[in-house]
Amino acid sequence: MRTSLDCLSCIVRQAIASSRLVTKDEITILEIMKMVFQKLSIINLLLTPPEIVQEVHAIIRKELNDIDPFLSLKQMSIQRALKLAEAAKISIKTSKNPFASAIAFAIAGNIIDFGMKSEWNEEIISESFSKALDYANCIDHETVNRIYHEIDHAKTVLILGDNAGESVFDRLLIENFPQNSTIFYAVKSSPVINDVTLNEAIDSGLDKVATIISNGADIPGTVLSKCSADFIQVFNTADVVISKGQGNFETLNEEKRKIWFLFQVKCSVIAKHYNYRLGDWMILEK
Amino acid sequence: MRTSLDCLSCIVRQAIASSRLVTKDEITILEIMKMVFQKLSIINLLLTPPEIVQEVHAIIRKELNDIDPFLSLKQMSIQRALKLAEAAKISIKTSKNPFASAIAFAIAGNIIDFGMKSEWNEEIISESFSKALDYANCIDHETVNRIYHEIDHAKTVLILGDNAGESVFDRLLIENFPQNSTIFYAVKSSPVINDVTLNEAIDSGLDKVATIISNGADIPGTVLSKCSADFIQVFNTADVVISKGQGNFETLNEEKRKIWFLFQVKCSVIAKHYNYRLGDWMILEK
Repeated sequence: MRTSLDCLSCIVRQAIASSRLVTKDEITILEIMKMVFQKLSIINLLLTPPEIVQEVHAIIRKELNDIDPFLSLKQMSIQRALKLAEAAKISIKTSKNPFASAIAFAIAGNIIDFGMKSEWNEEIISESFSKALDYANCIDHETVNRIYHEIDHAKTVLILGDNAGESVFDRLLIENFPQNSTIFYAVKSSPVINDVTLNEAIDSGLDKVATIISNGADIPGTVLSKCSADFIQVFNTADVVISKGQGNFETLNEEKRKIWFLFQVKCSVIAKHYNYRLGDWMILEK
Repeated sequence: MRTSLDCLSCIVRQAIASSRLVTKDEITILEIMKMVFQKLSIINLLLTPPEIVQEVHAIIRKELNDIDPFLSLKQMSIQRALKLAEAAKISIKTSKNPFASAIAFAIAGNIIDFGMKSEWNEEIISESFSKALDYANCIDHETVNRIYHEIDHAKTVLILGDNAGESVFDRLLIENFPQNSTIFYAVKSSPVINDVTLNEAIDSGLDKVATIISNGADIPGTVLSKCSADFIQVFNTADVVISKGQGNFETLNEEKRKIWFLFQVKCSVIAKHYNYRLGDWMILEK
């Protein structure tokens, strides 16, 4: 999807919040914001929001001389997610439909996102996981069964990772896949916001259940024209592609190949554009 | 007060919303926003927020070839305010302390503000006026009596107008002043957002109760260094100055002369900076 004018104030707000993770010096941040405004003054709204965010965050990382401003938030997210996952594992195991429950927890995990707010909000995160079991009960079982069936018949399945922490629940989902197909788990090639990279994927235990591949880019989404040839090969040939999170949706929802999108609607621009409601949990086939 | 980094996303959001009052063409608005970003890329945060907003709105007005994008919203505000004022007049007249009630309605009127949201919200506006009578009952009477006493002993009183529509309630306040001192009502010299200019002041009936003077600037606040000599003369020599609204507070709260500020706290940056609560009704002596 193209970037909306309404994304711009959000990108500005988020750039400031991200810079504040690294420095408390508002004068330094102002100088960074001047560069961000310079970049936005030649903006191309035909790009997707994650592509513009990539350029903004490249400025922040370079000027603050910090290749990973969200590192501690990502580490904290994984530690918290590993604890939450202990209870989730039991819930999934004892549920009537473990696969449906694992899908629900994978979407619940998508709440661990610092693209909108750059701070930990325990209340919102706890609420998301409390909702998972209810959601699993009222989930569209016909849709979930179709995903199950497709994975059951797949030679290769590709999961496009989104956020560190959320990645722990992607592992739980993979553990509840029907059979031993070859599973690829795609991560960003280098840090951008709190997106999962190789390090966080390993910390989440994904190397135990999947082959972790880098997508070759540092965009908080998946822009195929910017991805590596290796990744594109896997993307094109995988029998099933499961895309996690809003950033991947924003960058892939107009692609031709079939993709299953799992995410929470966290942005009013997307909600309005696609007629979803803010907070909706999505299992979308595109 | 200086502009905070947190003001920047709000200024961007508001520039887009204001442009949309004039055109639905998002490509035109994008071109305007590119110019706004260019301006923001050389921003000086030592300026007050209204000064930066002035520069942004000057771009919008020029590029959209519309000297008054908020004209119809201002006219609608005055018509609605004149109707609300009929009931307010009776409430003030029959209240135990008409002056205190008139102060309450003057602050209630400050809700008619399109600096934050560029659309009419009947619910929020009705709520503000419903609150006025309760507020008048629990108002700090000692403070109100001091204002009354000062006006009672003043030769000249200057009121710094804020928004069109709110101006109707400023007239009610003046009508409840203790005596016939010379009253000046200051307006902006030309349109900026929905701030009251000469035309709207006359439509609000202020010419019947005060001498309307232009402050010589088109800043949504009062920046003395940008005001006319005539205005500054009145400002410096008035026995009492009553400043309406947040924009005037943001630009005058560090001035030396004594000023009474009447406004609603509508912005989280101001609330946080001065330890107010969002939505607070303020009667401040500075």
